[in-house]
Amino acid sequence: MKLFVINPNSTASMTEKIIASARAVAAPGVQIEGRTAHGAPASIEGHFDEVMCAAHLLREVQEAERAQADAIVVACFDDPAIGACREVATGPVIGICEAAVKAASMIATSFSVVTTLPRSVPVIEELVRRYGLDHQCRRVRSAAIPVLALEEPGSNARLLIRDEILRAIDEDGCEAVVLGCAGMADLTEWLSLETGIPVIDGVSAATKFAEALVGAGLKTSKIGAYAVPNAK
Amino acid sequence: MKLFVINPNSTASMTEKIIASARAVAAPGVQIEGRTAHGAPASIEGHFDEVMCAAHLLREVQEAERAQADAIVVACFDDPAIGACREVATGPVIGICEAAVKAASMIATSFSVVTTLPRSVPVIEELVRRYGLDHQCRRVRSAAIPVLALEEPGSNARLLIRDEILRAIDEDGCEAVVLGCAGMADLTEWLSLETGIPVIDGVSAATKFAEALVGAGLKTSKIGAYAVPNAK
Amino acid sequence: MKLFVINPNSTASMTEKIIASARAVAAPGVQIEGRTAHGAPASIEGHFDEVMCAAHLLREVQEAERAQADAIVVACFDDPAIGACREVATGPVIGICEAAVKAASMIATSFSVVTTLPRSVPVIEELVRRYGLDHQCRRVRSAAIPVLALEEPGSNARLLIRDEILRAIDEDGCEAVVLGCAGMADLTEWLSLETGIPVIDGVSAATKFAEALVGAGLKTSKIGAYAVPNAK
Amino acid sequence: MKLFVINPNSTASMTEKIIASARAVAAPGVQIEGRTAHGAPASIEGHFDEVMCAAHLLREVQEAERAQADAIVVACFDDPAIGACREVATGPVIGICEAAVKAASMIATSFSVVTTLPRSVPVIEELVRRYGLDHQCRRVRSAAIPVLALEEPGSNARLLIRDEILRAIDEDGCEAVVLGCAGMADLTEWLSLETGIPVIDGVSAATKFAEALVGAGLKTSKIGAYAVPNAK
Amino acid sequence: MKLFVINPNSTASMTEKIIASARAVAAPGVQIEGRTAHGAPASIEGHFDEVMCAAHLLREVQEAERAQADAIVVACFDDPAIGACREVATGPVIGICEAAVKAASMIATSFSVVTTLPRSVPVIEELVRRYGLDHQCRRVRSAAIPVLALEEPGSNARLLIRDEILRAIDEDGCEAVVLGCAGMADLTEWLSLETGIPVIDGVSAATKFAEALVGAGLKTSKIGAYAVPNAK
Amino acid sequence: MKLFVINPNSTASMTEKIIASARAVAAPGVQIEGRTAHGAPASIEGHFDEVMCAAHLLREVQEAERAQADAIVVACFDDPAIGACREVATGPVIGICEAAVKAASMIATSFSVVTTLPRSVPVIEELVRRYGLDHQCRRVRSAAIPVLALEEPGSNARLLIRDEILRAIDEDGCEAVVLGCAGMADLTEWLSLETGIPVIDGVSAATKFAEALVGAGLKTSKIGAYAVPNAK
Repeated sequence: MKLFVINPNSTASMTEKIIASARAVAAPGVQIEGRTAHGAPASIEGHFDEVMCAAHLLREVQEAERAQADAIVVACFDDPAIGACREVATGPVIGICEAAVKAASMIATSFSVVTTLPRSVPVIEELVRRYGLDHQCRRVRSAAIPVLALEEPGSNARLLIRDEILRAIDEDGCEAVVLGCAGMADLTEWLSLETGIPVIDGVSAATKFAEALVGAGLKTSKIGAYAVPNAK
Repeated sequence: MKLFVINPNSTASMTEKIIASARAVAAPGVQIEGRTAHGAPASIEGHFDEVMCAAHLLREVQEAERAQADAIVVACFDDPAIGACREVATGPVIGICEAAVKAASMIATSFSVVTTLPRSVPVIEELVRRYGLDHQCRRVRSAAIPVLALEEPGSNARLLIRDEILRAIDEDGCEAVVLGCAGMADLTEWLSLETGIPVIDGVSAATKFAEALVGAGLKTSKIGAYAVPNAK
Repeated sequence: MKLFVINPNSTASMTEKIIASARAVAAPGVQIEGRTAHGAPASIEGHFDEVMCAAHLLREVQEAERAQADAIVVACFDDPAIGACREVATGPVIGICEAAVKAASMIATSFSVVTTLPRSVPVIEELVRRYGLDHQCRRVRSAAIPVLALEEPGSNARLLIRDEILRAIDEDGCEAVVLGCAGMADLTEWLSLETGIPVIDGVSAATKFAEALVGAGLKTSKIGAYAVPNAK
Repeated sequence: MKLFVINPNSTASMTEKIIASARAVAAPGVQIEGRTAHGAPASIEGHFDEVMCAAHLLREVQEAERAQADAIVVACFDDPAIGACREVATGPVIGICEAAVKAASMIATSFSVVTTLPRSVPVIEELVRRYGLDHQCRRVRSAAIPVLALEEPGSNARLLIRDEILRAIDEDGCEAVVLGCAGMADLTEWLSLETGIPVIDGVSAATKFAEALVGAGLKTSKIGAYAVPNAK
Repeated sequence: MKLFVINPNSTASMTEKIIASARAVAAPGVQIEGRTAHGAPASIEGHFDEVMCAAHLLREVQEAERAQADAIVVACFDDPAIGACREVATGPVIGICEAAVKAASMIATSFSVVTTLPRSVPVIEELVRRYGLDHQCRRVRSAAIPVLALEEPGSNARLLIRDEILRAIDEDGCEAVVLGCAGMADLTEWLSLETGIPVIDGVSAATKFAEALVGAGLKTSKIGAYAVPNAK
Repeated sequence: MKLFVINPNSTASMTEKIIASARAVAAPGVQIEGRTAHGAPASIEGHFDEVMCAAHLLREVQEAERAQADAIVVACFDDPAIGACREVATGPVIGICEAAVKAASMIATSFSVVTTLPRSVPVIEELVRRYGLDHQCRRVRSAAIPVLALEEPGSNARLLIRDEILRAIDEDGCEAVVLGCAGMADLTEWLSLETGIPVIDGVSAATKFAEALVGAGLKTSKIGAYAVPNAK
């Protein structure tokens, strides 16, 4: 099985981290192909950045399709352009927000999300509502760190995230926490140990869910909204 | 007041029609500036086309911003990239789907939408749900015509749309009908006469709502999700 | 265009303020006709007052209809008797709560409402839910002032409202604030300057939306719930 | 226990029917006091009629309150002015729509409503949504009969209602049917026998629920929206 | 009328308390038959306990059915196995959570629930959402006491509950409070006096609603999900 | 990885079919342990059967837990007793309805469910709403066949299911179909070929999702509603 994991921003160090997370959980025989959306913004912090990454992301999806990808993970928590990716792809396409919150809903009655910047909070709230899980999501929180701070060695980002998770436990009464940025993937285990709560990383969740959908013999439905784009 | 009406696809004849609709309803003193998203697909029929138009649309929004636009109308019923446009713009930005369905909700207890292709139906259903009006929307229907058929002289598109509206009245019990494509703007009056139901065109609705927001002294909020994009 | 702005309570000083707000935003050529619902309670603070004003309000709507009003604004934030007004009127009828929250939803991803008395909070919460915008409304708050305190020169009402807006920004994370009483219309600009957040007054919003609906050629649908009342 | 059952329209024959229904189900020791809202419209068919009855209804509620009513039933399926009645009353106030749909939700997983005129359908749909039972309500249907046809001896109204119930069973897959008009109260048993489905009359349901609330020691909460109206 | 009130746990002292509550509110002529689900857990604190009580509860329902019960109350706030009970029973079956929150929704615009252990909070939240009343429920709170502490003479449980109600009033702005455990039934009056807010006990509410449904001539619908179990 | 797949009914032939489906999709190294809930009803057709199977199902879950199961699949489309199973288990527990509808939501914008008996329709509708996917579920349909007909060689059950799927495509406009019974697992591929639409079997979906959750390092949260049952 060939699984493409696409980082929709152009920061290669983040792609490395994402690939590592995906490979760490991939089943035997699953080949993880990591891709960076060269030409996209260095980080995706809001709707504008989403648009600016989308065509680059789609180019990577088209290449994955040509390379006969069995499934595709879009590794940005804003789940940018997922519908468009699904039109292009034959196999399943899964965004890391959708994967993470649906995973959370299977192991806990409620969860909170901890993301990077405050401006991403409403974006994620809307996604969670679109996925129908607003009744299980206690709160979307920001640790008030820019995405790229997660790439800086020696930054205190991990401490800020840990503290926000502790506040989520205390104030929200949530039973699990979802990490709201692909760049947090490498912190998952440490955060879970520090906080004593299931901490869910979207990259791992999406990698495994993509494998699962392929393994169950499922492909993207092509008879409706996700049909191949109309030729122009 | 300078109001930019941007056609996010690249079909100039559609832009002409859109500009004509906007100018027909603009208040005295409101200057309508029409723009075409050159480089975008010829029509927007699904998520992929949305992505392919988005950067071109945003370029037009940025130019409108430099030209000191007071407000911007995005004239495609999929409301593509509205969040991103709002990040870029100072004044209000309104998509024609949002304008049309909110207008419908002010003059009727329920409405149905008639759009072009079946593949757009789920896209519009999701938009209506996002705007919180699913409880007033009886049904999103397709007249099974490609967007560009609306540009062909002598096509029977208008008859198909009329018949679908008549079916909506009969089967859905709706009190108003929203036209689900900018390319239908010139048919509004004829359709309303033929069917005896309020027929709502998003281009007119959005033009007037944009004027209204500016006239009420409102600008896009810049303290949250619609703040100016972060510099990269 | 003849636009009737009806104050459903009997306090003439409030009508003056409302007319001034409406005129300040009206487009050239729009004639604002202000009316007071003589015989109604001096202020509308709860469901009982709504009922007590409703027949007087409807009498004014009927007179507006006879005077060939193009549209009608009902200038009380409880949106009293809007359905009944729509049955009587040919043109659009818009309440200031509906106008304000729908305007807020076009310029911000979230908003809070600041109203007068605590007892109005659940009334407004129900309205917001009815309009389908509960997912964008962070909180409905009360500044704990009676409606008529807004009419007293020298009252500290404006300071209390400002402080409540500041709390809304701080505690709710809202991106805009809606003023929950017609009597606050004259404070809008000052409050926005003091608090740095878009502050939305329903009177201005409804005046412009009424103009917009008329300008877009829309009238109240007469084929369903808003048909002319059945003769008895 | 003194239970006031108020007919908010002015048709005395309907009041008689309502009183009979209430008395038929009242527990031993419960005194049913029937009242007609003299001065109100002869029937309530839409929002306008609701407003026109409301002040008369409230006058009856105030008199009931002075007469130390333990609870009040408002016997019109539009549940007019319930909030205002609750402000005035000390004991519980229950509308027949609320009672009937909540009763239905306790004996069936789904129900449909059969009302009189098509124009009442959206009014009832909104009520059902307000009560939070839209997920259990399959459909609100109209038998296309004016309210007062129910008062005419020899009218075929009962046959039309029966046929509409049979269609509801067949097309909606509902498990119970709610009668959407107080004037249908006397048909309940016959309709249930004819159709083989639980048929729920709001007058009986509200009478019993009012008794129940009183019997459980409950009164209308006076610390919020239902507090006694503010003195003017 | 013969009304069975079944305690789905095996603690006889709690059954006594429940029977006393039911009898205290029963109408003249209503015979309350109390039953204990011998063999069930001593208290129901979570999903596992629900399952462990369910077959024992159903055995009691079957016996009630054989004894020609007119209606059945299931006296545990988790409303365990209600659907199954309704399949078995001819008359209405009502759980105390459903009864209590629906009663609350008739006398107040909002309510909070105060239950025993934190682990029951999500269980009740889900019930409230299933009943469609999440928009009226401000918050489900725990007083952090095990169910059986309510049975211990001299425990400070009642003080902890009172304090939690006071916090609900202060923090939630609720207009009524629902007691989230059958074992609190005997505290209702005292708590209401201490806190000045309507306090709703599910046992009384369900007893009266069961009476009400029977009195209105309603039985469980047998044409759908609540039909008699299929023979195996 | 040791994955227990439990058939909550007592029909061993169905367990065989379920195990075969699970094994067919299991990743290399995943050991599928099939279990039958001996003592449970032969089929689960409604709430009563759910209760009657639950304790037997839980016994199997407890044994799986002692056998150090990494995850558990509950292979009945009513998702019986899932919360209780999660309290008992350390690893993830997933029901086949939840797995199937969440899988459907990842490959299609909408789906319909085809189940066995009409009485299961409301049960599944409630599950879908609980999982937050009612906005993506077009309709829950019944093929009007008893569960055990699926076990009879030579029954026409597969033809009835195929025809119902074809009706779903035609009438519902759904983009995928979910099979609403574990006993249909062996028909998935044939049905998909016959109907040309993605057909989703819950057993495969749940098996793969269980693997996925384990592979992503996730366990059931033990700090809230799914904590180990309180000792009695």
